[in-house]
Amino acid sequence: MHFDMRQLDKGQRYKIVSACVTPRPIAWVSSLSAAGIANVAPFSFFNVIGHDPPTVAIGMVAHGRGRLKDTPANIRETGEFVINLVDESHAGVMNMTSAEAEPEVDEGALAGLALAPAVAVKPPRIATAPASFECRTTHFIETGAHQVAVLAEVLHAHVRDEFISDAERLLIDVPAMKLIARMHGAGWYARQTDLFEMLRPQG
Amino acid sequence: MHFDMRQLDKGQRYKIVSACVTPRPIAWVSSLSAAGIANVAPFSFFNVIGHDPPTVAIGMVAHGRGRLKDTPANIRETGEFVINLVDESHAGVMNMTSAEAEPEVDEGALAGLALAPAVAVKPPRIATAPASFECRTTHFIETGAHQVAVLAEVLHAHVRDEFISDAERLLIDVPAMKLIARMHGAGWYARQTDLFEMLRPQG
Repeated sequence: MHFDMRQLDKGQRYKIVSACVTPRPIAWVSSLSAAGIANVAPFSFFNVIGHDPPTVAIGMVAHGRGRLKDTPANIRETGEFVINLVDESHAGVMNMTSAEAEPEVDEGALAGLALAPAVAVKPPRIATAPASFECRTTHFIETGAHQVAVLAEVLHAHVRDEFISDAERLLIDVPAMKLIARMHGAGWYARQTDLFEMLRPQG
Repeated sequence: MHFDMRQLDKGQRYKIVSACVTPRPIAWVSSLSAAGIANVAPFSFFNVIGHDPPTVAIGMVAHGRGRLKDTPANIRETGEFVINLVDESHAGVMNMTSAEAEPEVDEGALAGLALAPAVAVKPPRIATAPASFECRTTHFIETGAHQVAVLAEVLHAHVRDEFISDAERLLIDVPAMKLIARMHGAGWYARQTDLFEMLRPQG
């Protein structure tokens, strides 16, 4: 089957793109409002898009219930945020922070998360996350009337000691991190346990 | 451990971001040069970043061997491309197209791929892919001296009939698609076979 996307409604378009682009890595974003209220929320329209400088992209719905949602509002106000990667042990807590709370509610505190100061930006990182990236926005792009794309430079990275298998060669034990990914439907996720190797051909 | 990314070299930065942001979905991009030469190459710095309109982002290294690489050069010239999603049955062929060939070489033909005409754009789609998105560039952003971010609208989507489990409700059988994802290191990939469900809390 094939679909003229401009002839579909937005619910239908969401079903197609969110089903076919799977698995998606999860950015669990901690941010601060201009007034200093912390917010934590997960986004799976996310990936690294460069390494020199290290650059990430996150797509966000700009409006919920008629107002700018907390995370994109905070990022637009402050330009800074922290991406925390999500492992199996944080799956349930991450999911709790996906509820839409009122903006004055500190969702991180609600979920019992341990926050720690970042090094290069003001928003806190999640202390127990397997890895965190401290980010500063380089582009804040309205890709539609109700959605934005945030491009940001990764200024500082944290990786838990237990996942550094060789500090000198900077080798990271990725399977040990047990990162989870977003799949399809209202709530399907995937563990990365079924791996295989293919060596890149020589050009 | 934590790292000031601006103090690392680009190889070290690549190791950190490509290890921690996993799994990554794979955009197997077919494009045409202004002269009409087809090119096919995979990119894992990729995700959907919006659905209204449906929007994707791809990060690409702009230069290889001192010149613009084929895919970003083609996209800059023509503004159009097709993203083909990659399943297990195409893993080996996809990997073959990751070799850097000279620009006049038709890498798709080399790998024995069946190409089919697209509906809304000039570059061909991969006929046997489980799903394909026909895209038109909206933003071509230099995020560094040697890397670009391409943001594009998905104009037309193809999903193979066998994966549409309910055409009226537009339900797609994602596990049946057997999409693969890019993991870490020189050549680790993952199958999405270890799934679990979490329902989103009510806000």
